[in-house]
Amino acid sequence: MNLTVYLAGQIHDDWRGEVKKKAKEKSLPLTFVGPQTNHDRSDNVGEDILGEQPENVYKDDAASSINNFRTEVLLGKSDVVIALFGEQYKQWNTAMDASAALAQNKPTILVRPSSLIHPLKELSNKANVTVETVDQALEVLSYLYE
Amino acid sequence: MNLTVYLAGQIHDDWRGEVKKKAKEKSLPLTFVGPQTNHDRSDNVGEDILGEQPENVYKDDAASSINNFRTEVLLGKSDVVIALFGEQYKQWNTAMDASAALAQNKPTILVRPSSLIHPLKELSNKANVTVETVDQALEVLSYLYE
Amino acid sequence: MNLTVYLAGQIHDDWRGEVKKKAKEKSLPLTFVGPQTNHDRSDNVGEDILGEQPENVYKDDAASSINNFRTEVLLGKSDVVIALFGEQYKQWNTAMDASAALAQNKPTILVRPSSLIHPLKELSNKANVTVETVDQALEVLSYLYE
Amino acid sequence: MNLTVYLAGQIHDDWRGEVKKKAKEKSLPLTFVGPQTNHDRSDNVGEDILGEQPENVYKDDAASSINNFRTEVLLGKSDVVIALFGEQYKQWNTAMDASAALAQNKPTILVRPSSLIHPLKELSNKANVTVETVDQALEVLSYLYE
Amino acid sequence: MNLTVYLAGQIHDDWRGEVKKKAKEKSLPLTFVGPQTNHDRSDNVGEDILGEQPENVYKDDAASSINNFRTEVLLGKSDVVIALFGEQYKQWNTAMDASAALAQNKPTILVRPSSLIHPLKELSNKANVTVETVDQALEVLSYLYE
Amino acid sequence: MNLTVYLAGQIHDDWRGEVKKKAKEKSLPLTFVGPQTNHDRSDNVGEDILGEQPENVYKDDAASSINNFRTEVLLGKSDVVIALFGEQYKQWNTAMDASAALAQNKPTILVRPSSLIHPLKELSNKANVTVETVDQALEVLSYLYE
Amino acid sequence: MNLTVYLAGQIHDDWRGEVKKKAKEKSLPLTFVGPQTNHDRSDNVGEDILGEQPENVYKDDAASSINNFRTEVLLGKSDVVIALFGEQYKQWNTAMDASAALAQNKPTILVRPSSLIHPLKELSNKANVTVETVDQALEVLSYLYE
Amino acid sequence: MNLTVYLAGQIHDDWRGEVKKKAKEKSLPLTFVGPQTNHDRSDNVGEDILGEQPENVYKDDAASSINNFRTEVLLGKSDVVIALFGEQYKQWNTAMDASAALAQNKPTILVRPSSLIHPLKELSNKANVTVETVDQALEVLSYLYE
Repeated sequence: MNLTVYLAGQIHDDWRGEVKKKAKEKSLPLTFVGPQTNHDRSDNVGEDILGEQPENVYKDDAASSINNFRTEVLLGKSDVVIALFGEQYKQWNTAMDASAALAQNKPTILVRPSSLIHPLKELSNKANVTVETVDQALEVLSYLYE
Repeated sequence: MNLTVYLAGQIHDDWRGEVKKKAKEKSLPLTFVGPQTNHDRSDNVGEDILGEQPENVYKDDAASSINNFRTEVLLGKSDVVIALFGEQYKQWNTAMDASAALAQNKPTILVRPSSLIHPLKELSNKANVTVETVDQALEVLSYLYE
Repeated sequence: MNLTVYLAGQIHDDWRGEVKKKAKEKSLPLTFVGPQTNHDRSDNVGEDILGEQPENVYKDDAASSINNFRTEVLLGKSDVVIALFGEQYKQWNTAMDASAALAQNKPTILVRPSSLIHPLKELSNKANVTVETVDQALEVLSYLYE
Repeated sequence: MNLTVYLAGQIHDDWRGEVKKKAKEKSLPLTFVGPQTNHDRSDNVGEDILGEQPENVYKDDAASSINNFRTEVLLGKSDVVIALFGEQYKQWNTAMDASAALAQNKPTILVRPSSLIHPLKELSNKANVTVETVDQALEVLSYLYE
Repeated sequence: MNLTVYLAGQIHDDWRGEVKKKAKEKSLPLTFVGPQTNHDRSDNVGEDILGEQPENVYKDDAASSINNFRTEVLLGKSDVVIALFGEQYKQWNTAMDASAALAQNKPTILVRPSSLIHPLKELSNKANVTVETVDQALEVLSYLYE
Repeated sequence: MNLTVYLAGQIHDDWRGEVKKKAKEKSLPLTFVGPQTNHDRSDNVGEDILGEQPENVYKDDAASSINNFRTEVLLGKSDVVIALFGEQYKQWNTAMDASAALAQNKPTILVRPSSLIHPLKELSNKANVTVETVDQALEVLSYLYE
Repeated sequence: MNLTVYLAGQIHDDWRGEVKKKAKEKSLPLTFVGPQTNHDRSDNVGEDILGEQPENVYKDDAASSINNFRTEVLLGKSDVVIALFGEQYKQWNTAMDASAALAQNKPTILVRPSSLIHPLKELSNKANVTVETVDQALEVLSYLYE
Repeated sequence: MNLTVYLAGQIHDDWRGEVKKKAKEKSLPLTFVGPQTNHDRSDNVGEDILGEQPENVYKDDAASSINNFRTEVLLGKSDVVIALFGEQYKQWNTAMDASAALAQNKPTILVRPSSLIHPLKELSNKANVTVETVDQALEVLSYLYE
């Protein structure tokens, strides 16, 4: 059974590449999708497509409308979500995507370091499974096929 | 028309009291609900009810199951949500609640200072209305009755 | 049985007042809600609450976010929708509200003059009932209580 | 990931052909569907299939039932909607289809000329993304695959 | 706990009056709603409100749009449905209303004489409870309050 | 675009074979499903699988549970429904299936002879399209591909 | 805020009376509903209303159709569910009701003795909150009003 | 038409292997999925992936979160459910899965020995079909293709 997995979360290192490589090593029949991972492109896509905006708030709104469009399409087509939190940045998009996925009954794995146990406790309690590493998330996906 | 408003967001100052007072001054027929605002009680409610847990992660999970229960009941009964972000703390619960409300088609007003425009841009774009102050949020609620 | 009726449609004459007066004459237990009918307030509410915007497109978007918030709340609380088209103006809001109501399975009465039969034929076919006058719409509401 | 795109909107020029040609040039894995674009056939399909009707209102209702059937089937199978408004005609079908798509959580791109900013402001605010040209809409679709 | 009960089914004898009288005798806190029971009014309501139609098929469609509007509103507000079949007439409306209620997860009691066991077997199997008399249906409602 | 069509209705002549043959002639990419059309097998399947039952009412309930199971699976996988009424028999299953399909927003074509206009007027008004012959139903399906 | 609480679970001791008494002592604005707690009446209600059945399996099916009807109505009207497991009996109804409540997003508290931790681990993980005593369940309800 | 069948129920004998073998003999185009059937792996998967837990209740919760994740994914992708009860064990997972499937409108076949008629009567009444043997369940599946 082929499944599509949405990889929500930070775009500051190549954890998605790591997930894909390991899934391939395990020969899991998974297709991975996710947000734009080029940070500059993600921030500028509104002006790239719609032209210059008069202030940053409008530039940000234009970009976010297109980023949200992408997320809605790709998350909507997914069977499973992995949402990864790192130790830096606000990462409110990750919380937003994980919560939206859970509200749509998409089975969701939360990945977070132990340093974030306390501030993420309510989201962790709502997630289907909480793990600490990408390897553990892959073991959970792998368990679907045992 | 009486409406119930869920007040999601930080519990470190009395912004909910301010909202209620101003709604009363405007004679708006609104009932306000929200999370536990006693921070210690919110953190300890799991152990308060279920007894001591062996480690912090289990204490946090016990507390969050009861906090999430409260949120699901009260948010589920609400017609409108106000989600307020402040400049401090992770506030992932606020992002989680706002996103869950939006996924359930609860009309949602986001309140955030201008310093948070960029990191909240995607959530702001999904929210029905974004404002910068509690006063503005109340003006939006008041507009329902004009 | 008390019912709430959303009155979608143009705000250029007092047809809502006429509906309310006639419902009262018939002693129908109906509560009526609807959009902001003060045209200037509707156009300016974004800047009224959020302050001046740099261009008209942003002024319009700010106003429409607050108008849409109002519509979502009040339409969501309604049992029945009356959507009235007149001979002037684009009236895309009316089409948008009627279509949203129908997609949410809100029983909807379309009121349109015979001059608009052709351009409104698909919306008319989707509506539960199509009539030509406010009086006829009230007779349909009145039929609920026979 | 293959996606199906419903092209709602006016049928008075060949903008759909332009969209398809450009998507092909960009090698986007998209399937396009949409309404009947032969205007006479669209107006006459009721009588074509069901036989002559006694008056125009019945002819229009017969045609619209079959046009709406087509829209419900094809829009229901789509992942994404592009709704294009031009400067002429009532275009209430376009507003109806865009609003129905949004109510079903179909991610929707609105295309409208700047001359229509004001009358379309509420629909634009509800749409996921608003752009001014078909080229920009295609750039948004293309962004899904970056 | 007050409940609203929709009484679907034939309108050729006063079984609804019997239900209401017996519920009153048992002091059950029930509100009863249902279709138009004046047969002529039900058949003519389209022309009564919209004016004369050119053929019977249009007269019937006009009437049924208003009858269906009534059913959608009142069935939508109901907690429970009783659908009664008698030995005469086609009674396709009753089957339609019972099936629509079941599809909306409205708990539904089917009342049918033993002579109709075979032709109603699939609908009976889908209904929550099947009984043979109005008295038995009332005993089922009464059981809710034991 | 391949579509699956559920053919609800009487099983006393080979109208389904006619539909399939004509769809093939028109090269429409349609897959047809429907109820058990062997009348004896449909009536006896409960006892065939579960063994003899003590009375006809139990035999009928056993059969109908398996017939309803089949309908739920196959109707649930369908994109479009054709529901055909003939001049004989109660045909309450057809009304039940058409109404269930409409309640699930499955686009539905009603086929009925003109002699049944009056008793089927409410179901006809709810259906997306009403036609009188199988040929007309196929023309409607064919219109999806023009 | 008044809430309705469904009390699912065994009917072999008076734990529901205990819950109601303690809620009253705490002055919680709760209305409690639940299944028939007279065991004989619950087992016999099918024959009580529909008359003698030919075998136990039919007697049981008749009773269960009426018990399920009651559960669907009352659970459907509830805001919160408490599901209590004791150490005896199969209690499959309790598991069925708790799972149905969770699937309908009704916030649910599971009460089970520590001896049942292992066999109830999956249901406990799905429940919003798991406690061991009725007193703890009431503390959770009470927390809604702090 | 290919269908996916979820096989819920006990994991103490190889009834799933029997189902698959018989479906293959009948050449039914079915794909079977289900829970982890290695009992030790199912009990230990939490600690296998997340590491040792301080007490059994936490070990069980960790395992069940991953087992529930698997069930949600695979049940969510299924068209039909078979839920089998045997004479031993609590089998609350089976009741939970069958009830969740029914609440999601997944057509469900209950398999239970005649010794369990009474304690399973309510779940049996809710299931689409109840049979006593795996062979009978396969005959029901086979009936979909006649």
